[in-house]
Amino acid sequence: MPLTRISAPRHLPHTQVKALADAAQEALVSACNVPPNDLFQLLARFDAGEMILDSTFGGVSRSLDACIVEITFLQGRTDEQKRQLFKRLTQGAVEAGFRPDDVMIALVENTRMDWSLGHGVAYADHVQASKPTST
Amino acid sequence: MPLTRISAPRHLPHTQVKALADAAQEALVSACNVPPNDLFQLLARFDAGEMILDSTFGGVSRSLDACIVEITFLQGRTDEQKRQLFKRLTQGAVEAGFRPDDVMIALVENTRMDWSLGHGVAYADHVQASKPTST
Amino acid sequence: MPLTRISAPRHLPHTQVKALADAAQEALVSACNVPPNDLFQLLARFDAGEMILDSTFGGVSRSLDACIVEITFLQGRTDEQKRQLFKRLTQGAVEAGFRPDDVMIALVENTRMDWSLGHGVAYADHVQASKPTST
Repeated sequence: MPLTRISAPRHLPHTQVKALADAAQEALVSACNVPPNDLFQLLARFDAGEMILDSTFGGVSRSLDACIVEITFLQGRTDEQKRQLFKRLTQGAVEAGFRPDDVMIALVENTRMDWSLGHGVAYADHVQASKPTST
Repeated sequence: MPLTRISAPRHLPHTQVKALADAAQEALVSACNVPPNDLFQLLARFDAGEMILDSTFGGVSRSLDACIVEITFLQGRTDEQKRQLFKRLTQGAVEAGFRPDDVMIALVENTRMDWSLGHGVAYADHVQASKPTST
Repeated sequence: MPLTRISAPRHLPHTQVKALADAAQEALVSACNVPPNDLFQLLARFDAGEMILDSTFGGVSRSLDACIVEITFLQGRTDEQKRQLFKRLTQGAVEAGFRPDDVMIALVENTRMDWSLGHGVAYADHVQASKPTST
């Protein structure tokens, strides 16, 4: 139910962008108690010139391979969980061939009343009807 | 002034995705007091492999036709309004040919100071200058 | 660290959309104390029929050139800063050839713990480790 949107330059191979998506999900699972199958991702590609990222802001050195990972998920994660999310996501990205400078992450939070996963049912009501989860 | 972003697989015909967009707007109108002409939608398409959605999470059975509807709108809707929004949007999608399992919805909220609809004027100021609305 | 996403109709020349992006950044710098090199933008294009914008809602008269500028940034900007952001962004867009009716802006806010600009480090921690900024 986190929704993860990855914006990647078009020249990167699909396998590498997919590996970044996998790293994002693994980090959500390990750092934020997201169930492994709570998996919703969109991978968008951008031509050169349509992805304008400063090359050094924030004390890093970005290359043309830099990607942006945006995650919308439930409020309530602690600062420490977010730290671990950033750290593990980036570690996984590095294992997938990215430079650690090339992974930018942005989080936006909402609530259980802000999701319907299907059937037109609010997730908050679905959780009440079944067992509660920590996602 | 809700901004509705629909992410749909590329194989779906435009008419069907447009009908999902119509269902989203009709649900916003009927459940959340959005004026019918307060209509702002973006329809984005994704190739196979660029839209990664778990096939069963949340107690549903997703097909390759599954879509994601993201709505950014003003805070203040009640839980009951959101329930009706999810229900009606999904009902409308079903009438448009979707399976109820294939409609995922995510809401993000902001405030009247977070929108400018044109002319560089904040919506909060525009509303004050004209008559207040409930959108 | 504001992330600016511009949705533009496909028929507009790249130079014009890029000028709109420049106007957005200049407005963030002048109205919201964003450092000039704190620059992160995504430019997305939409075919006719995939960008559905009411032609008059909000007291404006939109043409087929209308664009949407979405900015995700840190909470804490005052109403007056947002007013100036809208005003200056739209002024810059007009200088780039847009009609003032054709610039719609939406803001979403998050916190310093919701960003990692690289290396898997939370921006909140990066700021503490270096000198604080007002972005």
